[in-house]
Amino acid sequence: GATGRTAAVSRAFWGRPARVLVLLFLSVIMLGTGLLMLPAAQGGREVSAVEALFTATSALCVAGLSVTGPVAHWSLFGQLVVLGLIQVGGIGIMTMASVLGLVVIRRFGLRMQLSVQSEQRTLNVGDARGIVLRIVATSLTCEALLALVLIPRMWLAHGMPAHEAAYSGLFHSVSAFNNAGLSLYGDSLTRFAGDPLVLGPVALATVLGGLGFPVLLELRRHLSTPRRWSLHTKMTVWTSLLLFVGGMVAVTALEWGNPATLGALPWPQRLLDGAFHGVMPRSGGFNVVDVGAMESHTLFVTVMLMFVGGGSAGTAGGIKASTFAVIWFVVWAEVRGHPQVHAFGRRLSAGAIRQALSLTFLSMTVVAFATIHLTAISPFPLLDVLFEVVSAFGVVGLSTGIAPALPPHGQVLLTILMFAGRLGPITFASALALRERTRRYDLPEGRPVIG
Amino acid sequence: GATGRTAAVSRAFWGRPARVLVLLFLSVIMLGTGLLMLPAAQGGREVSAVEALFTATSALCVAGLSVTGPVAHWSLFGQLVVLGLIQVGGIGIMTMASVLGLVVIRRFGLRMQLSVQSEQRTLNVGDARGIVLRIVATSLTCEALLALVLIPRMWLAHGMPAHEAAYSGLFHSVSAFNNAGLSLYGDSLTRFAGDPLVLGPVALATVLGGLGFPVLLELRRHLSTPRRWSLHTKMTVWTSLLLFVGGMVAVTALEWGNPATLGALPWPQRLLDGAFHGVMPRSGGFNVVDVGAMESHTLFVTVMLMFVGGGSAGTAGGIKASTFAVIWFVVWAEVRGHPQVHAFGRRLSAGAIRQALSLTFLSMTVVAFATIHLTAISPFPLLDVLFEVVSAFGVVGLSTGIAPALPPHGQVLLTILMFAGRLGPITFASALALRERTRRYDLPEGRPVIG
Ligand SMILES: [K+]
Ligand SMILES: [K+]
Repeated sequence: GATGRTAAVSRAFWGRPARVLVLLFLSVIMLGTGLLMLPAAQGGREVSAVEALFTATSALCVAGLSVTGPVAHWSLFGQLVVLGLIQVGGIGIMTMASVLGLVVIRRFGLRMQLSVQSEQRTLNVGDARGIVLRIVATSLTCEALLALVLIPRMWLAHGMPAHEAAYSGLFHSVSAFNNAGLSLYGDSLTRFAGDPLVLGPVALATVLGGLGFPVLLELRRHLSTPRRWSLHTKMTVWTSLLLFVGGMVAVTALEWGNPATLGALPWPQRLLDGAFHGVMPRSGGFNVVDVGAMESHTLFVTVMLMFVGGGSAGTAGGIKASTFAVIWFVVWAEVRGHPQVHAFGRRLSAGAIRQALSLTFLSMTVVAFATIHLTAISPFPLLDVLFEVVSAFGVVGLSTGIAPALPPHGQVLLTILMFAGRLGPITFASALALRERTRRYDLPEGRPVIG
Repeated sequence: GATGRTAAVSRAFWGRPARVLVLLFLSVIMLGTGLLMLPAAQGGREVSAVEALFTATSALCVAGLSVTGPVAHWSLFGQLVVLGLIQVGGIGIMTMASVLGLVVIRRFGLRMQLSVQSEQRTLNVGDARGIVLRIVATSLTCEALLALVLIPRMWLAHGMPAHEAAYSGLFHSVSAFNNAGLSLYGDSLTRFAGDPLVLGPVALATVLGGLGFPVLLELRRHLSTPRRWSLHTKMTVWTSLLLFVGGMVAVTALEWGNPATLGALPWPQRLLDGAFHGVMPRSGGFNVVDVGAMESHTLFVTVMLMFVGGGSAGTAGGIKASTFAVIWFVVWAEVRGHPQVHAFGRRLSAGAIRQALSLTFLSMTVVAFATIHLTAISPFPLLDVLFEVVSAFGVVGLSTGIAPALPPHGQVLLTILMFAGRLGPITFASALALRERTRRYDLPEGRPVIG
C-alpha cells in the first residue's frame, strides 16, 4: 500500500540520501522533458528533444538558461509545466539539502537551528515531514507576498492588463524566490529597469531564497540577536552581505561609463540597475541590461560571483558562501600565523577545511574542462563560453546569449553542467562529511616545500 | 671590515631571511635599471625608465617578458647586463629558496636531502656557503654542457658564423637553464623550430633548472633508487612528469589543426614543436610558434600550466608542483573518504595543507584583480590579458604580444607582478611554515555546511 511504499522510500533515503536525491531529480527531468515534447506544450514552434531536455533541466534545477528563447514562446500548458518544475525544483532542493544538512549536523552533534531538531532527539521521518511542511509554507508565503507587490505595480505602473499582470507577477514571483531566473520575456526584466518597486522586491525575494532554509529559519527566530546565530548562519549572512555589497559596487563602477549598458541612463537608474546586477549573479539570474554588452572585466567579476553562489540548502547554486568563507578564514589564519582556524568564536575542523578545498577545486576542474571543450567546438570567445559554463554550473542563468547557437552536444554538455551544479556540491559535500571519521595517525608526518 | 659586514648580513639573514631576500632583489633591480638606462646600453633606441625597470626586473626575476623587443635590440653592453641579471637572478633565487627551504625543513626536523644537512647537525653560515658553491657549480656545469651542444649545432646546421653561434649558444644556454626565456631574437627560438638537437637540449635544461636545486641534488645521488627520494622530490618529480606529459599532449592535440601554428607543418615537426610548447609554460618561456596565433582554448590550458609552474627552490615560478600536488592529494583523500591525507607513504600535515590552500588562493586573487584592472585600462581581450598576467606572475615569459602596447602604468603593474610572482610564493610560504606552532585546542569545534 501507499504507507509501505512511503516507508520503503524513506528507508532508502536514510540509507543513501544522495543517490535518492539524484534519482528523484532525474525522474522529474524525464517527466518534464516528456511533457514539454507534447505538441500541446509547444506554442507553434518545433522543439527538439535536446531543447526540451535542456528546458526541463534548466527549470527543475532552477538554472535559468534557455535555448528556446523566453518562456512565453511555449504554449500556456508548456509555461505551466515550466512553472511547476521551478516550484518542485526549488522546494525539492531546499528540502533535500536541509535534510542532508540535518543528517550531517547530527552526525557531528553540533548546534544548528533546524526546526524539529530542537524538539526531538532522534532523526526520523517525522523530522523530514516537518521540514517539508515548513519549507512549503515559507516558499508559498514569500512568493505570495512578492506577487502581492508585483501584480498591482505591473498593472498600474507598466500598463499591463489586469489578467496579464496577475499571471506575470505570479510567474516572476515563483521564478524569483526559487532563484530560477527564467522569465516570460526575451529580455528578462529589462522592461522593468529603473523601477525600484519591481527590482527591489524581486532582488529581496531572490536573496532570501538564496540564503537557504536553515539560515532563513534562524533569522526568523533570532533576527535581532546575531549573537545567537549558529556558525553556519553567521558565515552565510556575513559572506553574502560582503559579496552583495562588493558585487553591487564592482558591477556599477565597471559599467558606469559603458553606453551599451548603464552609461546612457540617468544616474539614479545606473545605481539601481547596477546594484540589481551585483545581486543577480549569486544565482538569481534575471537581468535588466544586456549582459552580452557588458565590459569583459565586468563579465569576469560576474563569473567569480556566480562561481561562489549563495547559501547552502537554498535555491542558490555555486560552491556556496560558507565554502568560500571557510577558504578565506584559512587564508586569514595562515597570514596571521594562527595555529588554528577560528571563525566567529569556533575552531574550524580540519575535515571542514579539506571538504571546502576539495569541493572548490573539483568545481574549478569541471568548469575548466567544460570551458576548454565548449570553446573548441564553438566559434565563441573563451570568456563568453566560460561565462555560460559557470552560469550553468552555478545554476545562475545569466547569459551572453551563446547557448541557443551551440551545437546540440554543446547544449547537452550545458544540461549536464546544470544538473551537476545543482546536485553535485550538495551530494558530494554531504557524502564526504558523513564519511568523516576520527583520525588515527597511522603514518609518519611528511612535509613538502610549499611555494 | 668585510668580515664584520658579512657577519652582520648573515645575522640579518637568519633573523629575517625573507626580508633580506626582498631587499637584495630590489637593490639588484635598481642597479640593473640604472645600467640599462645608460646610453651605452641602448642600441640606438631611446628606452624609458619604465622600460629599463621592466627589462631589469624581467631578467633578474627570470620572468622573460619584454616591452623593448628582443634582447638583441640592446647594445652588446646592454645584452651583457641582461645576461648577468639572468645569471645572478637564477643563482640567487635557487640559493635563497634552498636556504629558506632548509630552514623550514630543519624547523620541522624532517628528512630532506640538502647537501650539507646530512653532514652537520646545526645550521650555520657554512651551510649557506656550501649550498651557494654547489648551486654555482651545478648551474655553470649545466649551462656549459648545453652550450657545448647548441654552439656547434647553430654553427653547422643553422648557418651562423662561428662567433655568432658561440655567443647565441651561450646566451640561450644561460637563459634556458635559468628558465629566463629571454631570447636574442624577436621571434624567440622560432628559427630553430623542428630541430630536435636544439629544442631537445633546451627543453631538458629548462626542465632541470625548473625542478629546483633540492630535487636536482637528490636525483644526482639517488637517481636510480626512487624509493629513497624524499617526499618533496617524489611529489615534484611525479607531478612534473604528469604536467609535462599532459601539457605536451594537450597543446599538440589542440593546435594540431591550427594552420597558423602547427597545422601547416609536417607531422614529425608538429609533434616536436607541440611537445616543446607543452614544456615551456612551466616557466621556460621560449616559443617556436606564434603564441598570439594559438587557439584560445590552448591559451587557457597554457594559463593553467603557467599558474602551477615548476619545482620549489629552482628557477621556475608559479605556485609550484608540490603545492599543486598537496591540493590534489587532499581532494583524492576526501573522495576516497580517508580521514588523513596520505602521499607517498607520508601523512601530510594540516599545516602544509593550509599553507598550500592559502598560497593558491592568494595567488588566484592577485591574478584576478590584476587581470580585471589591466583589462579595464587596455583594449585587449580578457583572455590575452589573463595570459600576460599569469605569464608575469608565474615568471614564464610567454606572450600573446600585448605587453609593449600597454600604457606605462600597465607595464609597471606587470613589473610588480613579476617581482611578486618571483619572491611572493617563496617568502610567503616559508614565513608561514616557520611560524607554524603546535596546536592548542582553545575553542570548541564548529562546522558550517559545505556545498
Ligand atoms: K538561476
Ligand atoms: K621565464
